[in-house]
Amino acid sequence: MMIVNGVGRQIPGVIKGYKNVIPYSSPHGYDPFPEKVSAYTGKALPGENKLLPDVETAIRESGLEDGMTVSFHHHFRNGDRVVNLVLDTAAKLGFRGLKVALSSIFPIHAPLVEHIESGVVGGLSCNYMLGPVAEAMSRGAFPFPVTFRTHGGRDRAIEAGEERIDIAFIAASAADEAGNFNGVSGPSACGSLGYCITDCHYARKTVVLTDYLEPYPLVPASVDETMIDFVVKVDKVGDPAGITTGAVRTVDDPLRLRLAQWAVDVIEASGLIREGISFQTGTGGASLAAAGYLREKMERLRVSGSFGMGGVTGHMADLLREGYFRTILDTQSFDRKAINSLRDNSRHVEISSNRYANPHNKGCAVNRLDAMILSATEVDAAFNVNVHTASDGRVMGGSGGHADTAAGSSLAVVVAPSVRKKIPIVIEAVHTVTTPGETVDCLVTEQGISVNPRRRDLLEDLRSAGLPLIEINDLRAEVEKITGRPELPKRSEKIVAVVEYRDGSVIDVIRALG
Amino acid sequence: MMIVNGVGRQIPGVIKGYKNVIPYSSPHGYDPFPEKVSAYTGKALPGENKLLPDVETAIRESGLEDGMTVSFHHHFRNGDRVVNLVLDTAAKLGFRGLKVALSSIFPIHAPLVEHIESGVVGGLSCNYMLGPVAEAMSRGAFPFPVTFRTHGGRDRAIEAGEERIDIAFIAASAADEAGNFNGVSGPSACGSLGYCITDCHYARKTVVLTDYLEPYPLVPASVDETMIDFVVKVDKVGDPAGITTGAVRTVDDPLRLRLAQWAVDVIEASGLIREGISFQTGTGGASLAAAGYLREKMERLRVSGSFGMGGVTGHMADLLREGYFRTILDTQSFDRKAINSLRDNSRHVEISSNRYANPHNKGCAVNRLDAMILSATEVDAAFNVNVHTASDGRVMGGSGGHADTAAGSSLAVVVAPSVRKKIPIVIEAVHTVTTPGETVDCLVTEQGISVNPRRRDLLEDLRSAGLPLIEINDLRAEVEKITGRPELPKRSEKIVAVVEYRDGSVIDVIRALG
Repeated sequence: MMIVNGVGRQIPGVIKGYKNVIPYSSPHGYDPFPEKVSAYTGKALPGENKLLPDVETAIRESGLEDGMTVSFHHHFRNGDRVVNLVLDTAAKLGFRGLKVALSSIFPIHAPLVEHIESGVVGGLSCNYMLGPVAEAMSRGAFPFPVTFRTHGGRDRAIEAGEERIDIAFIAASAADEAGNFNGVSGPSACGSLGYCITDCHYARKTVVLTDYLEPYPLVPASVDETMIDFVVKVDKVGDPAGITTGAVRTVDDPLRLRLAQWAVDVIEASGLIREGISFQTGTGGASLAAAGYLREKMERLRVSGSFGMGGVTGHMADLLREGYFRTILDTQSFDRKAINSLRDNSRHVEISSNRYANPHNKGCAVNRLDAMILSATEVDAAFNVNVHTASDGRVMGGSGGHADTAAGSSLAVVVAPSVRKKIPIVIEAVHTVTTPGETVDCLVTEQGISVNPRRRDLLEDLRSAGLPLIEINDLRAEVEKITGRPELPKRSEKIVAVVEYRDGSVIDVIRALG
Repeated sequence: MMIVNGVGRQIPGVIKGYKNVIPYSSPHGYDPFPEKVSAYTGKALPGENKLLPDVETAIRESGLEDGMTVSFHHHFRNGDRVVNLVLDTAAKLGFRGLKVALSSIFPIHAPLVEHIESGVVGGLSCNYMLGPVAEAMSRGAFPFPVTFRTHGGRDRAIEAGEERIDIAFIAASAADEAGNFNGVSGPSACGSLGYCITDCHYARKTVVLTDYLEPYPLVPASVDETMIDFVVKVDKVGDPAGITTGAVRTVDDPLRLRLAQWAVDVIEASGLIREGISFQTGTGGASLAAAGYLREKMERLRVSGSFGMGGVTGHMADLLREGYFRTILDTQSFDRKAINSLRDNSRHVEISSNRYANPHNKGCAVNRLDAMILSATEVDAAFNVNVHTASDGRVMGGSGGHADTAAGSSLAVVVAPSVRKKIPIVIEAVHTVTTPGETVDCLVTEQGISVNPRRRDLLEDLRSAGLPLIEINDLRAEVEKITGRPELPKRSEKIVAVVEYRDGSVIDVIRALG
C-alpha cells in the first residue's frame, strides 16, 4: 500500500522497522493525544550519593538492557566525547540492539557505524546527520531505517511516548554531586543545554557526565536534582572548539552578500522591521550576513528588537549587548562569545528545544518569530525545501529547527543561490521534503525573489518596494537553461530513513543509493 | 476499624470524604508508584493569543465544571487577591462543589468560609491554615475533612495523581501574553513563585493572573509558555505588604534570645559549623535570632556556607551578599529585601517546592541541609512536634516545610519555650502530630537541651561541649510542676482534617471542637 501525503509524496503504508505510518497532512493538521506519557518518580533519601566512579558503573546502575533506548545530545556538536565513550563501553560490556536517540550526529560520531554494523546499536533517531554515519546510512549499510525528526518534533515524540527513553546520558560542562548541571561553568563550557531538558523529564534513568564538579548547589542549573539519577566525572566531556565545525560559516563572496541584502529587504518591505521585531537566522554564510544587514537597517530605522533566537552566535550576542535586541532565547550556543554571553548576560536565556519548537505543548517560541531566514539544499516549484539530501542523493543534514521555524514564523525567507557548482538548487521537485512549501513564504536567489502564491499580500509589498521578483516556475526554467535537466540519483527500493514532520507524521522517506 | 500508625496515633481505616487511608509508617517507609500521573499536551499555533479580558472569561474558557479541582498558591500570603477574586466569580457564575487546592490559607481568605457553607466549595487541601477558615474548620463547620499536606507532600500528591488539578490559577507579579511569568518584575513583585511550578506542569488548564504585562519574552520566567493556557490582566494581583503578616517576627526578649544562642551552640557542638555548612531557619523570632548568632559564629570560625534555604528573609539576603553563604535556594520571599535579592543576585535562586522537598522525585534540597531550626507549638516525650493545633485545640498553622526539613536535614533542632503563657509546650503526647519524633534530633527550651535518644552521638557532642542537658521526661515533669496537668480540649468525633505526612500517609487526624 502506498499513500500520497500532503506534500504529494508516495509513502509506504507500512515501513519495516518504523512505528505506524501517519502520513503528513498539513502544517498544523494533527492534534496530539490529550495526555503526555508518564514521567518517572524517584525516592529522595538524605545522604544519598549520586556520584559513580565511571561510565561502566553508570551503565550497570542505570539498569541498561539489550534493546533499550539511550539518548544523547549535540551541544558539543563535532567536539562531543560522550556518545562514543558510552557506546564503546556498552559494546565492551556486550550489549546488543541498543536504540540511540541522538539529537544530531556529526563526523566525530563515526564509531556509530561500526556499532550498528556489529549489532551493538539496533536503532537510531536524530534531527540532523553529517559525516560517516550519514554516508553509511545513505548507501544502505544499516539494517533499520533511521528516524529523522525536527528539533521540536523530538521533544514532542518524547512527550507523546513515541520516543521512550530508557537512559539519558547528558554531557554537561559542570555538575554537582546531586545532579544539578549546566553548560556555562567549567573548562569545557559549551553554552545552552536546551536539547536535553525534555529527556531529563521523561527518561527512566538519567546520567550526567561532566569533567567539572562544583560543590552543591551548582548555579545556574539547566536541569535540577529532581530529575537526575547519577553523576559521573570523566576526563573530558567534550571539546568546545568542535562546536563550530561544519555549522557556522562566514562569507564574503558578493553573490551571497547580495542574497543576504535582499532577504533583509524582503523583511523590511513586509513591514516587520518595526519596534519589537523578533528574528532568527541560520548559521550559513548568507544568514549571518543577513543579520549584519538587519542590524544596519534597524539602526537606520531606530527600532530595537524583542528577541533573537536559535543557534546563537557571538554576532547575536553583540546585537544583544548593543541593545538591538532585548533578549536572546538560546537552544545552542555556537561560539565562545555566545557561551560567555549566556553565562553573564541575564537577558541571554537558555531555553529547552521544547519551548523553542514543540508544536504539541501550550506554546512555543517559534510561533512568536516575526522573520526567519532559512537555508536550502534544494527548493522546488511548490516551495518545498530539502535540507536532508544533496543532489547526489547522499544525506548531509536534516531539519534541525528548519521545519519548526518555517511553520512558526510570520515570514519564512529561504535564501539560496539558484545554482551551486553547476548543480541546480531550484528544481521541479525536491529529492527529499524537509519543510513543506506551505510554510515557506518566499525564496531569495541571485535571480530575484520568488513569492509563494499563498502570500499575495507579500507579493504586493515586495512589488511596491521595487524588489526584483521572479515567478518560481520561470526561475526553475532559467536554472534548467544553465544546468540542463538534472539527473536523478540512482536509488534502490530500500528505505534508509523516515523523515518525520514536527507533528510526527511522515513527510518523506529516503531510499538507499545505488 | 481503627489503625494505630507509626507514631502511635489511632486513625480510622476509612475517613468519609477522604481517599483511601494509608497509615503513617516511618519517615521513608513508603516507595512511590514508579510512574507519575500524565501531564497534558496542548497545540501551539502561530498567532495564538492567550490574553483574556477577565476572570469570568478565563473560568469559562478553561472549561470549569462543578466538582472540579482548582488550585492556588500563597506567594502573597495575607496579601493575596486572586483566591477571593476567582472564587467570588465562580460563585456568581453558579458553580458548585469546587475542590480548592490552596497551598496555604491566611486570614484574607475568610470568604472561603462562606463559599464552603454555601456549597460553592466542596473540598479543600492546604499545607498551612491561619485565620477565619481555620476557626470555622476547627469548630466543625465544613461538610468535608480538609487535607493537610507538607510543602513537599503537595508536589508529591500532584505528581502521584492524588491531587489532580483541573485548573491552576497563578498569581504572578508579571507575565507576557504567551504566559511566561515571574514574581520579581512589576509593581506587585512578591519574589519566588516556587509553590506553583508543579501545578503548571500537571494542571489540565493554567490561568496566569497578573497586574503587569511585559512584552514577549518576559525574563526571567518562573514557568514558561509551554505550560500556560491563558493570561488575565487584573487590577491588582496582590499586596506584597501582606506577605509579612503573621509570618516573620523579630524578637528581643532575653528568653528567646537564649534559646537561639543554644540552638546555634548545638549546631556548633555537632561539628556542622564548618566550610560549606547549609542551613535553614523558620521565620519565628527565635529562628531569626539564631541566624544572627550563626553569622557571628561563622565569622569567628572563618567558615562560609554553601547555601541557605527557605522562606527567605532580608536577613538571609544580607548573609548571601556578605559572603556567609554562596547561594540561597528560595521557595518564598518574605520581604522586599529578599525579593530584590532574588531579582538582582544571580546566586539567589528561585526553586520549586518540588525541588525543595518532594520525597518522591530523584532528589530534593532538604536532603542536603546540614542544620534546620524548627519551631513548635507542642513537643512530646517522643519528640513528636505539633505545629497544627494550639493547646485549646484550634488549628492555627500546619506543616509547611516543617516535616520535610526535619526528615531531610542532618540536624533538626526544635526551639521552643517549655511553657507559653502558662500553657505547657512540652507535654506527654502532642495533640496533633505534624512531624514525627524520629526525624527530630533535639529540643532546645529555656530549661536546657533534650536530645532524642536515637542520637546518642549528638548527646555525647553536647555533653562534651558543656551544654545544659535535660532528659525529655524530666523536662516534661518540670513543666507539669509549673502548669499542672493540662486539660485536654473537648473534641467531638467528627474529623475536620486529615494530616498527611510528606509521603501521603496519614500521620494524624484533627477532630472538631466541642
